[in-house]
Amino acid sequence: MNQDKPRIDAHVTLAHGNGGRRMRELIDGIFAREFGNPLDTQVDAARLPLDAPGADWLITTDGFTVEPLEFPGGDIGSLAVYGTVNDLAVSGATPRYLSLNMFIEEGLEMAVLERISRSIARACQICGICILAGDTKVVRRGQGGGLYLATTGIGQRRRGIELSIRCIQPGDRLIVSGTVGDHGTAVMLAREQFGLSGNLRSDAMSVAPITEALLECAGLRFMRDPTRGGIATVAHDIASATAATVRLFEDQVPVRNEVRGVCEILGYDPYYLASEGRVVAVLNPKAAESAVVALQRLGFHDARVIGVIESGTPRVILQTRLGGERLLPELEDDPLPRIC
Amino acid sequence: MNQDKPRIDAHVTLAHGNGGRRMRELIDGIFAREFGNPLDTQVDAARLPLDAPGADWLITTDGFTVEPLEFPGGDIGSLAVYGTVNDLAVSGATPRYLSLNMFIEEGLEMAVLERISRSIARACQICGICILAGDTKVVRRGQGGGLYLATTGIGQRRRGIELSIRCIQPGDRLIVSGTVGDHGTAVMLAREQFGLSGNLRSDAMSVAPITEALLECAGLRFMRDPTRGGIATVAHDIASATAATVRLFEDQVPVRNEVRGVCEILGYDPYYLASEGRVVAVLNPKAAESAVVALQRLGFHDARVIGVIESGTPRVILQTRLGGERLLPELEDDPLPRIC
Repeated sequence: MNQDKPRIDAHVTLAHGNGGRRMRELIDGIFAREFGNPLDTQVDAARLPLDAPGADWLITTDGFTVEPLEFPGGDIGSLAVYGTVNDLAVSGATPRYLSLNMFIEEGLEMAVLERISRSIARACQICGICILAGDTKVVRRGQGGGLYLATTGIGQRRRGIELSIRCIQPGDRLIVSGTVGDHGTAVMLAREQFGLSGNLRSDAMSVAPITEALLECAGLRFMRDPTRGGIATVAHDIASATAATVRLFEDQVPVRNEVRGVCEILGYDPYYLASEGRVVAVLNPKAAESAVVALQRLGFHDARVIGVIESGTPRVILQTRLGGERLLPELEDDPLPRIC
Repeated sequence: MNQDKPRIDAHVTLAHGNGGRRMRELIDGIFAREFGNPLDTQVDAARLPLDAPGADWLITTDGFTVEPLEFPGGDIGSLAVYGTVNDLAVSGATPRYLSLNMFIEEGLEMAVLERISRSIARACQICGICILAGDTKVVRRGQGGGLYLATTGIGQRRRGIELSIRCIQPGDRLIVSGTVGDHGTAVMLAREQFGLSGNLRSDAMSVAPITEALLECAGLRFMRDPTRGGIATVAHDIASATAATVRLFEDQVPVRNEVRGVCEILGYDPYYLASEGRVVAVLNPKAAESAVVALQRLGFHDARVIGVIESGTPRVILQTRLGGERLLPELEDDPLPRIC
């Protein structure tokens, strides 16, 4: 028997959430090994080393319920890290620290939990952030979805960076850093219920390299990652906050052929599907083209100017390939629950 | 129709989690109204105003799955606020900021969500903390427990406060600030399955007044709130961290008669049941009695010295009323899932 690795049951039981021996085994056997240093599992609260006195500090939080827990291109663990990191990145901040909550359903395979924990640790390493605090609850079989995660992220931002949806003005351009709807479609395909399969992978990743490049562009007003509700919902948020019209150009929005095909078969619109590694940014008219060129030089070849803000009533118009116009409504029903 | 209060459905639907119109109505109609100022629902990340440059900052996180969602003396909302505030308080910090995640099960009554949101807002006000970031996910019926919450708390601590389970030495005394097991028993009684009822209320509250008083006592080594696993689990944590024996005195541990009665009927041990408004503290032998007196003067009349740390093997011994000794084992099964 390996003394360094406590024996762990094959499945999570209610006792793994009770605060007693089994919970300690779970924490020591998986979480401390994967997330340890600086995570201290013996304290009620950990020191938050705010070592950049000249910086502003930002906080964000996010819940994750994706089904299935593992999908091509990622899993709920990497998704949670990137999702939280990305909310900080689009706000102009460098992600630094994370807290992590797990809600585990009784019966989850311990091997799955271990793989996801390893994936969380790897994503943290890629993003240069560390987990300072964590908590685990176990709920009865039938009262959860295998695993739900909640993460709170803290990042630092250079003083003087002013980004806000309220800074957007008519004439400003919308750009996107890559193809849209990959994540939503990949997760949908990974659900066996659809009887479809493909090679599509989630685009989940840290967008920090993208946001760092955009922060160098004069004329940057606002950035957002088009997750739940997709780029159509970001466009609606902009229309609503600025009381202006957002016009999207169908022939400019990059959509993978495979995403388009799956959406046609199943009746979804890729503009409403989640991306988890893309940025929608708004820049003044002069800056937009050069921002796109900068992203393409970094390897984001599908970056495009996809729209423009126009004075007018708050609405989102899609200018179609054939030159017509179509109103993109605000999202009503949930097209795909538990997509992120 | 009241223009200030958007019309809200009677039950939460999947569409309330989709990022679109219904979700915005939920956020504007309930969350922004209850938690607003400074919570800004239009940003991806919020500024964390770290306005005490001389202080240390601490972070903690916690998940809440209590069933039923509302019980005598509290609900999952106040429990989440107090639970997180208390983890900061027992670490010697003044709670300041909170992030809040909700995992809502499709079908939850909107009126319940509204009551719980109001209760969260009230608890935040009592504790002097504010919610800076939030997120909501809705999961399908049968994949949740009505409502799960995750909170991350940030607090500031005066430089120089050194509290750690590793500071505890043989000879030190354990004190408790009040009766134990009230919360666990009250929640248990609130579950109709037991066919019992009573007047018992959860003890859930902020322990900040208690920890502030204890921080004034020279000789304070360590504090913890005996939640999941109760005082027996805190005693085991101490035994394990210090490799010493913890001796508890049965005739000194304050237990309400009603808690004792319910536990006898149902076969539970109150030492393993959660309290949500109590503090277990360890002080050097000279300081313990005066700390208890200080707490009693503040109105915590049931505060007692309940145990002592002894050199010896790491274990927890209960010295019984009749003078005998009984080993208190580490918690094995979960006596009561979803108690906090």
